[in-house]
Amino acid sequence: MSQQTKFILPESEIPEAWYNIQADLPRPAPPVIHPGTLQPIGPDDLAPLFPMALIMQEVSQERYIEIPDPVLDVYRMWRPTPLFRAHRLEKYLDTPAHLYYKYEGVSPAGSHKPNTAVAQAFYNKEEGVRAIATETGAGQWGSALSFATNVFGMDCEVYMVRISYQQKPYRRSMMNAWGARVYPSPSEATGVGRAALAADPDTTGSLGLAISEAVEVVATSGGAKKYSLGSVLNHVLMHQTVIGQEVIKQMEMAGEYPDIMVGCAGGGSNFAGFAFPFVREKIVNGRDTRIIAAEPSAAPSLTKGQYVYDFGDTSKMTPLMKMYTLGHSFIPAPIHAGGLRYHGMAPLVCHLYDMGYIEARAVRQNPVFDAAVTFARTEGIIPAPEPSHALRVAIDEALKCKESGEKKTIVFHVCGHGHFDMAAYDAYFAGGLPDYDYPEEEVERALAELPQIA
Amino acid sequence: MSQQTKFILPESEIPEAWYNIQADLPRPAPPVIHPGTLQPIGPDDLAPLFPMALIMQEVSQERYIEIPDPVLDVYRMWRPTPLFRAHRLEKYLDTPAHLYYKYEGVSPAGSHKPNTAVAQAFYNKEEGVRAIATETGAGQWGSALSFATNVFGMDCEVYMVRISYQQKPYRRSMMNAWGARVYPSPSEATGVGRAALAADPDTTGSLGLAISEAVEVVATSGGAKKYSLGSVLNHVLMHQTVIGQEVIKQMEMAGEYPDIMVGCAGGGSNFAGFAFPFVREKIVNGRDTRIIAAEPSAAPSLTKGQYVYDFGDTSKMTPLMKMYTLGHSFIPAPIHAGGLRYHGMAPLVCHLYDMGYIEARAVRQNPVFDAAVTFARTEGIIPAPEPSHALRVAIDEALKCKESGEKKTIVFHVCGHGHFDMAAYDAYFAGGLPDYDYPEEEVERALAELPQIA
Repeated sequence: MSQQTKFILPESEIPEAWYNIQADLPRPAPPVIHPGTLQPIGPDDLAPLFPMALIMQEVSQERYIEIPDPVLDVYRMWRPTPLFRAHRLEKYLDTPAHLYYKYEGVSPAGSHKPNTAVAQAFYNKEEGVRAIATETGAGQWGSALSFATNVFGMDCEVYMVRISYQQKPYRRSMMNAWGARVYPSPSEATGVGRAALAADPDTTGSLGLAISEAVEVVATSGGAKKYSLGSVLNHVLMHQTVIGQEVIKQMEMAGEYPDIMVGCAGGGSNFAGFAFPFVREKIVNGRDTRIIAAEPSAAPSLTKGQYVYDFGDTSKMTPLMKMYTLGHSFIPAPIHAGGLRYHGMAPLVCHLYDMGYIEARAVRQNPVFDAAVTFARTEGIIPAPEPSHALRVAIDEALKCKESGEKKTIVFHVCGHGHFDMAAYDAYFAGGLPDYDYPEEEVERALAELPQIA
Repeated sequence: MSQQTKFILPESEIPEAWYNIQADLPRPAPPVIHPGTLQPIGPDDLAPLFPMALIMQEVSQERYIEIPDPVLDVYRMWRPTPLFRAHRLEKYLDTPAHLYYKYEGVSPAGSHKPNTAVAQAFYNKEEGVRAIATETGAGQWGSALSFATNVFGMDCEVYMVRISYQQKPYRRSMMNAWGARVYPSPSEATGVGRAALAADPDTTGSLGLAISEAVEVVATSGGAKKYSLGSVLNHVLMHQTVIGQEVIKQMEMAGEYPDIMVGCAGGGSNFAGFAFPFVREKIVNGRDTRIIAAEPSAAPSLTKGQYVYDFGDTSKMTPLMKMYTLGHSFIPAPIHAGGLRYHGMAPLVCHLYDMGYIEARAVRQNPVFDAAVTFARTEGIIPAPEPSHALRVAIDEALKCKESGEKKTIVFHVCGHGHFDMAAYDAYFAGGLPDYDYPEEEVERALAELPQIA
């Protein structure tokens, strides 16, 4: 073997700006609109929830937005992240393809989420905000924001979906280790939480309800607290582009350019961060790369959803965004990839999909875990269930190359480790993992409840 | 801030040889002796358990032993590991000291253990061994060997102390992910296991019993299986010296040389791997560094033990080794740092301590977790309980520098992450962590049972 395995950039090569793909779009993305007026929403509509700097980033048309030094100083704790050549996986698959993967699991929270959490905490701090509230499902986002607020000496409260709070106690412990307060949602701390508990004391909670609790806390704080989101929004996706910008340099080190790129997509932020700098190469420089979003068959928004205006949350509190959606009331099956259980998709990802710059593929749970275990046994890293969707698609593409004899360069994104997901591996090894097919009836039901926009 | 945070070596700088401190000792370490004959044991005594290459390494006087290419190829999956400047911890402590830490938590198993597991699996494979049996307490060693045997396509069976098997199910899941079979010890798979279960069906097991099971499996395998140990032995310590050799180069990058080095010590392998290359600098080049082994007050072998011949295990199956020991029948309190719950210490570490090249300090559990949380909240990494002992001592030394105004360079070793130890953090946050003082009576009792050697 004895070939180079890791492509590591020096600290001086951490990108100094985030890349804003809005500057390079052949046509602008459809605006976010107010559900009452149906008019595009403006900065003032968002000001109660977010600091102005982030609201401005949300609508900015600047191609590059400089990363503040205090954010770069935090990024230096783990960035640049490694790009690996998957020599052992190639050999195992006996494929002529060259496989590379970017790995964000080296961050303190173990995923890509801190890239935006740190930026969001910083801008809030700059505008005098001392406390942030958020929700978390499986706990990746909550732990990333706990880490980030702690770095800047801020208060953090996390509303964690009750069933995850009970099933993933160690994600909660991690947030505690960074000083955050974590509430099982629904909680006694908010009005909506108390109402939900009164209606059903045994409720397991939902992400929609947890969002409602965090937003209530912010709305009733008299401006003292702000809200923070871990995916979907334009500025969140933009913060993640440090990933793909590093990959461009690392692939230069490797002396190859990707024929195929694969990332998993739930809300869309890790996919966007990985892929958008390469989408720019397609748009601006005409470079030819197939860019594939891997999604679960249990929540196949891109492959089976409709491209229409819909709410971002189940409780219809957000503005309306044009996106590929299964309907805001869609309830995904309880797959272990909690981060991919979303009815919609980031509007910018959807816009690029609609224009044909990216593809999508839906994969089922057991084949995903087959790929995860193959990866663990060849490359050593135990991946989280979410990026294992990308692994499945990348392995399938490598096997096609074996069939055809093509020596393609395939680059995929392993956005987090699975150290807090071992119960999912246990279920897989016990043979008890359900395979959820496309939930046709549930999608039909939910799509019938879409808001009617002219 | 904006100063360099990480000192990263290129892959080409992975050490190409292990450093064998036996070549540089001013006087040789006392021999290991047979408990029956009291004569030094020879290679043939060990041949049933270990491959000859490792037995030869155990007694080698060569200064450097070349690392085989297939082992280097595996090391490349995560080595060289990073050295960090702890800027944020320095600032928090308000100390003039410069703090650096080596971090082995980036390995697949999350600790330094794979450095020797990979080497041991390789040499076994070279000599035709297809299967290895071992024991594990908290699971760090078992998961490292599972990873390593999987890489070389070997079979692995792990006897995991029953209480850990029940309390740390996710360490077991990790071993399963790498294809190992894991048995709660005592198990029905061995004679000693069945006997122990017959005597007490509810036994929680012990490391001594788990060793007995693994050794029985090997002894009754007709030579098909070998045994593997994760610490204490000379060759195990030597394999870990890739750590300290990298630190030497990384401190050159940083332009400083350590005044103080701190590692935790249970069996002694992570401490030795980190420190021995610097001990060589003391012995050979007269460089002046204080090198401190941090041990738990609940198992203070160096600071409170006697330097005598004793068995390495509780069941008196090993040869006799001269070491600082609390007595092989000593039962340490159930501190969360399972990797430091050992009655003795690696003979080479003891020999250097006896000659005055290294120091030792015992620390209590709650101050250790205070240090762990301080580290998590400043440097972002959630450390395992074991290296948090080193953290405690390093922080104490940094605070002394604050008192005295001295600008010392302090380098410590964070040998693993705490992602599988979050229950210990929960107990700490709940205020329920006992502080175990030096167990004087238990040590007196156990020392009275030492073997009587003239």
